[in-house]
Amino acid sequence: MRFGRIATPEGMAFAVIEGDGDAAVAKQIAGTPFTEPEYTGKEWKLTDVRLLAPMLPSKVVAIGRNYADHVAEVFKQSAEHLPPTMFLKPATAVIGPDAAIKIPEFATKVEFEGELALVIGQTCKNVKAENWKSVVRGVTIVNDVSSRDLQFADGQWARAKGIDTFCPLGPWIETDLDKFDFSDLPIKAHLTHDGETATKQDSNSNQMIWDLGTIIEFITQSITLLPGDVICTGSPAGTAEMVPGDRIEIEIAGIGKLSNPVERA
Amino acid sequence: MRFGRIATPEGMAFAVIEGDGDAAVAKQIAGTPFTEPEYTGKEWKLTDVRLLAPMLPSKVVAIGRNYADHVAEVFKQSAEHLPPTMFLKPATAVIGPDAAIKIPEFATKVEFEGELALVIGQTCKNVKAENWKSVVRGVTIVNDVSSRDLQFADGQWARAKGIDTFCPLGPWIETDLDKFDFSDLPIKAHLTHDGETATKQDSNSNQMIWDLGTIIEFITQSITLLPGDVICTGSPAGTAEMVPGDRIEIEIAGIGKLSNPVERA
Repeated sequence: MRFGRIATPEGMAFAVIEGDGDAAVAKQIAGTPFTEPEYTGKEWKLTDVRLLAPMLPSKVVAIGRNYADHVAEVFKQSAEHLPPTMFLKPATAVIGPDAAIKIPEFATKVEFEGELALVIGQTCKNVKAENWKSVVRGVTIVNDVSSRDLQFADGQWARAKGIDTFCPLGPWIETDLDKFDFSDLPIKAHLTHDGETATKQDSNSNQMIWDLGTIIEFITQSITLLPGDVICTGSPAGTAEMVPGDRIEIEIAGIGKLSNPVERA
Repeated sequence: MRFGRIATPEGMAFAVIEGDGDAAVAKQIAGTPFTEPEYTGKEWKLTDVRLLAPMLPSKVVAIGRNYADHVAEVFKQSAEHLPPTMFLKPATAVIGPDAAIKIPEFATKVEFEGELALVIGQTCKNVKAENWKSVVRGVTIVNDVSSRDLQFADGQWARAKGIDTFCPLGPWIETDLDKFDFSDLPIKAHLTHDGETATKQDSNSNQMIWDLGTIIEFITQSITLLPGDVICTGSPAGTAEMVPGDRIEIEIAGIGKLSNPVERA
């Protein structure tokens, strides 16, 4: 089931998204994505409403250096012997589909990072790896936008990855985890620059160093996760610079596409 | 004015704290610390209620390496030529006065860091340094508890400083900013170990590299701050290890004392 958050002429609401393309509809629900949907009876064609970020998380916990090929391209080293790297993105960075990524003047080399995101379904601590699905409500797509110049100048990544609009999330939360093979999930990023679209990331979750269960276990050894919290599971190789005027689309098979224009802040 | 958050037999509430020591009282207010207090008429002796963290922030933004003496002791280098370092602590790490700092087995060298904290009063972005007081509702004390072993093994500080209970905050928010000289504010940390208390941090905000206005300007160039967000302004020298059984008390003149026991998680 796909849960989205929509802006309609009547306000914001959670909705179940059914169908694809022009036939897709958004069926408003009374509650949140954390419970079985209670339909209000209102529905819209998806093309008539605006999809927002599907969740406003209390926190965004991210795992860096989790794809061997990406570690090699960005950090110029092997991923062997490196521990998992946890960092946080502020919730104020979250934007939804089609909202603009806004690059400030002082961020001079801003790159996309297309990633699989997990949306936590219940308060949890000390989760064992094999039980990870029991605490995850669903999956979505995140673009862990990163200003490489600031990332390496600062040492800590909070600013480079925490700038307002640097966490596009969506388009919706897919709750049917059993339909995925998370050990073999294609992840792509398509960058449109000067009217030409090129596929920059074309990888697969089979390149992940730490799998989803290990990530959840690692994080929750330290930190309590709350319903709606978002876990960014790391970016594969192929990240590249974006500049104002571009459009970046992250595509994960079985979820959909998260597309955002890039503008000057 | 001092705003606290209290647990009473009737539930949790914000309160204005008046008086000192055994004579202190907590006067319940109907709203939040962000507006002028509207008293409900209920009050308790402060000794009859429990002070909680005075705010549940949406985010905790921290500045590292902001005291030259602390940079020298921890990073073994000069603070000259280093940029300000921004990092985030998750809100789930926040605890209140007298709540236990709980050290997990895998954190083998956990230190206190007594710091001045700012509590943001309004949504803000791109704040000029000279206007910093207009966006700050008040000041309080934070203990930026840090597991040094994890901090340096991980590279990123989110885990080392983000473990549950690693952000003691309080005892209350002092809103009278004009009574402070923030360029000359004593900050102390008293550690009780094996029944003996020693003053480990005995420094002053005059050691700060980046002043409060500069910090607010630096953060809000990138990140929108929301009401209740907490800014940790950096730790002076004298940080030291705490072990289960200890008690750590941070003292800032004009605010008060933030005291927490240390336990094994």
